Amino acid sequence: MLSVKTPEEVMTLLKESFPSGITGETVIPLSEAPGRVLCEAVTADEYIPGFDRSSVDGYAVRAADTFGCSDAIPALLAESGEILMGESAGLILSPGECAAIPTGGAVPAGADAVVMIEYTEDYGDGTIGILKSVSPGENMVFRGDDLRPGTVLLPKGRKLSVPDIGALAAMGMDRVRVFRKPLVGIISTGDELVPVSETPAGGQIRDVNSSMLAALAADAGADVRSFGILKDDENLLGKTLDAALSECDLVLLSGGSSVGIKDAALRVIESRGEVLLHGIAMKPGKPTIIGRIGGKPVFGLPGHPVAAFFVSDLFVRPLIGRLMGRSVRIRTVPARITEAVSANHGRAQYMGVFLSGSEDSLSAVPVRSKSGLITAQAGSDGYFCIPRDCEGVPAGAEIRVKLYTSD
Amino acid sequence: MLSVKTPEEVMTLLKESFPSGITGETVIPLSEAPGRVLCEAVTADEYIPGFDRSSVDGYAVRAADTFGCSDAIPALLAESGEILMGESAGLILSPGECAAIPTGGAVPAGADAVVMIEYTEDYGDGTIGILKSVSPGENMVFRGDDLRPGTVLLPKGRKLSVPDIGALAAMGMDRVRVFRKPLVGIISTGDELVPVSETPAGGQIRDVNSSMLAALAADAGADVRSFGILKDDENLLGKTLDAALSECDLVLLSGGSSVGIKDAALRVIESRGEVLLHGIAMKPGKPTIIGRIGGKPVFGLPGHPVAAFFVSDLFVRPLIGRLMGRSVRIRTVPARITEAVSANHGRAQYMGVFLSGSEDSLSAVPVRSKSGLITAQAGSDGYFCIPRDCEGVPAGAEIRVKLYTSD
Repeated sequence: MLSVKTPEEVMTLLKESFPSGITGETVIPLSEAPGRVLCEAVTADEYIPGFDRSSVDGYAVRAADTFGCSDAIPALLAESGEILMGESAGLILSPGECAAIPTGGAVPAGADAVVMIEYTEDYGDGTIGILKSVSPGENMVFRGDDLRPGTVLLPKGRKLSVPDIGALAAMGMDRVRVFRKPLVGIISTGDELVPVSETPAGGQIRDVNSSMLAALAADAGADVRSFGILKDDENLLGKTLDAALSECDLVLLSGGSSVGIKDAALRVIESRGEVLLHGIAMKPGKPTIIGRIGGKPVFGLPGHPVAAFFVSDLFVRPLIGRLMGRSVRIRTVPARITEAVSANHGRAQYMGVFLSGSEDSLSAVPVRSKSGLITAQAGSDGYFCIPRDCEGVPAGAEIRVKLYTSD
Repeated sequence: MLSVKTPEEVMTLLKESFPSGITGETVIPLSEAPGRVLCEAVTADEYIPGFDRSSVDGYAVRAADTFGCSDAIPALLAESGEILMGESAGLILSPGECAAIPTGGAVPAGADAVVMIEYTEDYGDGTIGILKSVSPGENMVFRGDDLRPGTVLLPKGRKLSVPDIGALAAMGMDRVRVFRKPLVGIISTGDELVPVSETPAGGQIRDVNSSMLAALAADAGADVRSFGILKDDENLLGKTLDAALSECDLVLLSGGSSVGIKDAALRVIESRGEVLLHGIAMKPGKPTIIGRIGGKPVFGLPGHPVAAFFVSDLFVRPLIGRLMGRSVRIRTVPARITEAVSANHGRAQYMGVFLSGSEDSLSAVPVRSKSGLITAQAGSDGYFCIPRDCEGVPAGAEIRVKLYTSD
């Protein structure tokens, strides 16, 4: 008999049971790469920059030719040519010569510094006056200043940012090897369920969970496949789970409200693998099962949509990230609760809130609903937790709110 | 002659010049809807719940039949049937009768309360003992308790969360009308540019911006179309811009480093619409143009990838959100800078940082790079701004860091 675990214990259990990045590798184009995780370090295989560049608009010179010059006594150099963007510097600068060069242009052989255009004067007869001396290397960036072959640019496990994408492109990579997105299979069960598009007859309800869990999994970065709505039939459930496991990396069973099908989910998982957890000390969300079949995670989620949401947001969302190599980080914002909320049932209690006010001083109004239906959560902004050993929070207390969306 | 604007003035200019949600409407399936913005209010057109439901497992009763009962003197009721999930309650409860009912089951006609199973006793002869009285309506949720036809569930402009998706599904919506994703066209210009997949010859550099801007636009929620790399040719630039504007909602021109093509971008925009801005008082990123052609925004971005990144992250990213109806919110985290950074050039200065430490006490190491190349930004976590009238920040100062990724 497995004991009921606290939410913190469940997080630890998931980390211990499912290694990061187990969905394997894939190669994707750069435009899809922000937020994806490198499954191998990226190492430079060339010099960046690839040639000595000017970092200003001006004239490439031999620094020694400018020593001692000033506004009053300019150094006079012969303009031997002009460096164009995108062209190799064909010319070779001799002593007493200079060449016009744009920012980013290739510094020609013979030159060892660049004078900014502001400190020059064009006499119009092929002679350029240099009004300020430069030291060797001044206003230049040298080949390999940033990277040399073998330098690690980005480590394995790096979650790629937009500037990272730019750096990869600069290195000549138009594709990148990352951890694959998990494919999440979703199975809804319950005799009372009808598809969302149908009007429920007496006693029936719409299958909210298939749509909601698909949205959550996609929002968390996964691909999603739905296996439809099953009647409460253990044999059918087993066959559908087998089909889902044959192609998916993670399977979400969303149970009906009846006791029979919950036991069926338990037996179906037990007979194919192991049940890691049966029951979480949280409200709502207690009747949750977590199993492992062939190394893959299988969740038996509560049929009640509000409970299914909290359990999936707390545990399935970070697990999806983990399967594709992302580290798990839960971000919260502080807010003051506008009214007292009681809790005295020995389970961590999760509750939606409506936020208002400025970012520095948020007020949180708890979602009050007699029905506990998901419709009551519509328009709310996030949720908070009252820990299991706490009898509630008084009005005005500071709480930490996990937002539904991160931006 | 247009004056150079500060970053704050640019934000205001964009808000005034481009209305929220101008890309129009589209209908999408629920699974794609998290983060999308409603372009019309969603109103209930039915009662939620749709029938009187039990909120506990137990027995549906006439409350009056239980008045005065107790552990010692149970009320004895005849079990007239069992309510199954998903089935309309066909039976009608007569006085002295009760019916077994699961959580969420439809309360039968005649019953007006539910007794929790914990307070009942099954005598096995068709008689159920009720050990605790209930008042009318107890342990029930009534039809329409949450929503009635005409109630606004979610307002126009709501950015949809996962629980919102659940609420829409519960209301029978499997698709939802939202603001359309903008299509962003990207044009790179510069004689010195070669595609990322090619090895640059002397003086050439790879076209970093096409890949990086496509990644940024996609990450911001847009669809992206690339119009390739153009040589510095004003006529070709004009024709390509016309083609991009004929299908895209926003066009990003990424200029080469040469002076000529910058002027060309300005003339090409001017001749087709209006130039709203020419130059931003920021470093890097000064040589930025913002125009409006046929109501659509056109950016002339710096060719330098680091400058192009800062300008696009600061202005293009929120504009993409705005075009699809999202409100603009810039989130930052506090951190202490590990070394002094000077700034005394009269422009807001943006600089990448590497973060370390815990969320409550982050240290920020500034990206130092002589080259200013995008490769130097690889692996950094975000960036901060030194305001234009500030001469720098001392080591240990608290700065606000905008993270590249929000999760």
